[in-house]
Amino acid sequence: MATLSFERSEYDDRLAKTRKAMETDGLEALFVTDPSNMAWLSGYDGWSFYVHQGVLITQSGDPLWWGRAMDAVGAMRTTYLNPDNIHGYDDSYVQNPDKHPMADLSTLLGVRGLERARIGLEMDNYYFTAAAFGALAQGLPMANFADATGLVNWQRAIKSATEITYMRRAARIVERMHAVIRERAEPGLPKNELIAEIYHASVQGAQGHWGDYPAIVPMAPSGLDATAPHLTWDDQPLRAGESTFFEIAGAHRRYQCPQSRTLFLGKPPQKYRDAEQAVLEAIEAGLAQARPGNLCEDIAIAFNATLNRLGFQKDSRCGYAIGLSYPPDWGERTMSFRTGDKTVLQPGMTFHFMPALWLEDGGLEITEPIFITETGAECLCTTPRELVVKG
Amino acid sequence: MATLSFERSEYDDRLAKTRKAMETDGLEALFVTDPSNMAWLSGYDGWSFYVHQGVLITQSGDPLWWGRAMDAVGAMRTTYLNPDNIHGYDDSYVQNPDKHPMADLSTLLGVRGLERARIGLEMDNYYFTAAAFGALAQGLPMANFADATGLVNWQRAIKSATEITYMRRAARIVERMHAVIRERAEPGLPKNELIAEIYHASVQGAQGHWGDYPAIVPMAPSGLDATAPHLTWDDQPLRAGESTFFEIAGAHRRYQCPQSRTLFLGKPPQKYRDAEQAVLEAIEAGLAQARPGNLCEDIAIAFNATLNRLGFQKDSRCGYAIGLSYPPDWGERTMSFRTGDKTVLQPGMTFHFMPALWLEDGGLEITEPIFITETGAECLCTTPRELVVKG
Repeated sequence: MATLSFERSEYDDRLAKTRKAMETDGLEALFVTDPSNMAWLSGYDGWSFYVHQGVLITQSGDPLWWGRAMDAVGAMRTTYLNPDNIHGYDDSYVQNPDKHPMADLSTLLGVRGLERARIGLEMDNYYFTAAAFGALAQGLPMANFADATGLVNWQRAIKSATEITYMRRAARIVERMHAVIRERAEPGLPKNELIAEIYHASVQGAQGHWGDYPAIVPMAPSGLDATAPHLTWDDQPLRAGESTFFEIAGAHRRYQCPQSRTLFLGKPPQKYRDAEQAVLEAIEAGLAQARPGNLCEDIAIAFNATLNRLGFQKDSRCGYAIGLSYPPDWGERTMSFRTGDKTVLQPGMTFHFMPALWLEDGGLEITEPIFITETGAECLCTTPRELVVKG
Repeated sequence: MATLSFERSEYDDRLAKTRKAMETDGLEALFVTDPSNMAWLSGYDGWSFYVHQGVLITQSGDPLWWGRAMDAVGAMRTTYLNPDNIHGYDDSYVQNPDKHPMADLSTLLGVRGLERARIGLEMDNYYFTAAAFGALAQGLPMANFADATGLVNWQRAIKSATEITYMRRAARIVERMHAVIRERAEPGLPKNELIAEIYHASVQGAQGHWGDYPAIVPMAPSGLDATAPHLTWDDQPLRAGESTFFEIAGAHRRYQCPQSRTLFLGKPPQKYRDAEQAVLEAIEAGLAQARPGNLCEDIAIAFNATLNRLGFQKDSRCGYAIGLSYPPDWGERTMSFRTGDKTVLQPGMTFHFMPALWLEDGGLEITEPIFITETGAECLCTTPRELVVKG
């Protein structure tokens, strides 16, 4: 079996926390389809989330891994579960409009005595489609389904010491990726050649720790394209007089450490310098609020107040929880730094403080992954906090 | 605006084909959430599919792009749509349990006079969650929703000349990636260091054409881990006497060309040679059936008959349609090479002929991306079709 990333006792603790939350919500069973939640609970690690799969939790016994038969072998290799708790469905259910895999799951839940149970489903997590719910509801007409979106995600909010170790390794990797950008970027270099170097650094790893795949690919738009946040790359050369932001992450054992920096080739116009100054001050104002007992929104309010005072505006959230993740998102989809999010910050929480500005003619992203300590917040990375100016 | 990957007339043709299919199914509107379908219809290209978004088609006018406000800017940069046909929702809808973005879409559909329309939804495509459907049904209680899973995917089956050009470029890239494996692999090399080289080659591109991100990361399990198909990598060194398969893809402008090869370091045991021989013969048998007028299942039946005669078995499909794709899958999710798939092969269709064997103690993947021509099938890659033996 592949080596588990955590002691068995840590998985036991996670299961106990999840069961307590299930009890609070009156759930006899919980079917988890978000790959990050599957991995957090069972250790399962494989790129098989393009077919229907999940992990079932009840109030006793080990979780049940359910998925495509060929991936059941992967579950044997990567989880702590014994074969009795790994169930593979026939390949004829795969991407076949005539046979939905959830029919197989329904039968299995029936056999386990859950046909009338109150079952939590991740209605709005990734990969649980409208059709999956329809087929499950049809297969178990007497069951009482409840929305358990985010139930497991919330249990993941406070990180263990081992999780923080993995995030620190990921932090070393993203620092290295940003160093590569500083070293290699120059006018005329085709963007994809620079991205190739960034990818190489991300998988090579840092300080002896290997790089896993980030849950999002590098986003690296230049010039006017950088007015939009989520564009990727092509082969256009980097140009003098143009900014490019690099929103990238290091990853180790599926733990993600995202961080963005912005490159300017040549002498930046004054407004970029003004924006840089505003963002740096606003970051400091936000960080000053990042401590146990304060609320998520306190960071956003402090950040926005400073930013506005300095003449800039941002109308989107400026941060979100991070940790273990699979594509398509490196966020945990629980807390956000925005007005109205009254979640109390606690030691062990980790966030991507993401105060990106998308201006009229380009973008400025200078961001920090942070870790809430007993007394405040620690920035996980030491990447210089500045506009990267070269050339 | 970013350069579109296709002439406007090609997008018009796609829209016309899709509208015809909608008419056949009695759909007044179609809401497309699969990022591949969104891109194919509108040109939209961005890693924003971690939030709710989509493209709406009716029987007249341009499509409507709908998504997060910050990504509306990306839609302005990457699609041919004018601003009137790009609608962004407020950031407060993002990952906020109290506000589902589909409430915003419902309002928009109402304004467009679609509150009682028959609307097709991709019920089982990626990223259309159970909760998304629930919120849409609640917001438009008089609408008549129909399942349009795969409707657009099927329109994509026959590739245009430009699409084939992009797939050939992706083929050059994956050939180069396999060449890198041949050049670099040796006993003792940590797996992640080899993967870093593969990634570098994939983004660097080949023959002057840049590499886009493949829709799946490299899958590269060794030894017993290779009995499972979808495991990725860690830092364990490659070992003499062990096999590793590399299931990887080249990509260009989102067009995917997947191909797998298997590496054996040292002298392969006879059973690997026997398996190799069986797969190679069975591939030839399958390819001989790959021609216009034959059925998808004809390839599987010929492949399996030969494989079984030579003493091996495969109980999963041995191929699927490929083309434009975004994570989590590089397949098109329409046709499969398996018994019962009676789709008629036509010139211009492209597939990953994927006759992987997962044996008791390891895996053997030797696969071919193919293109159905007027008279038969062309293998898109020239990678030597053999077990790669080194060391």
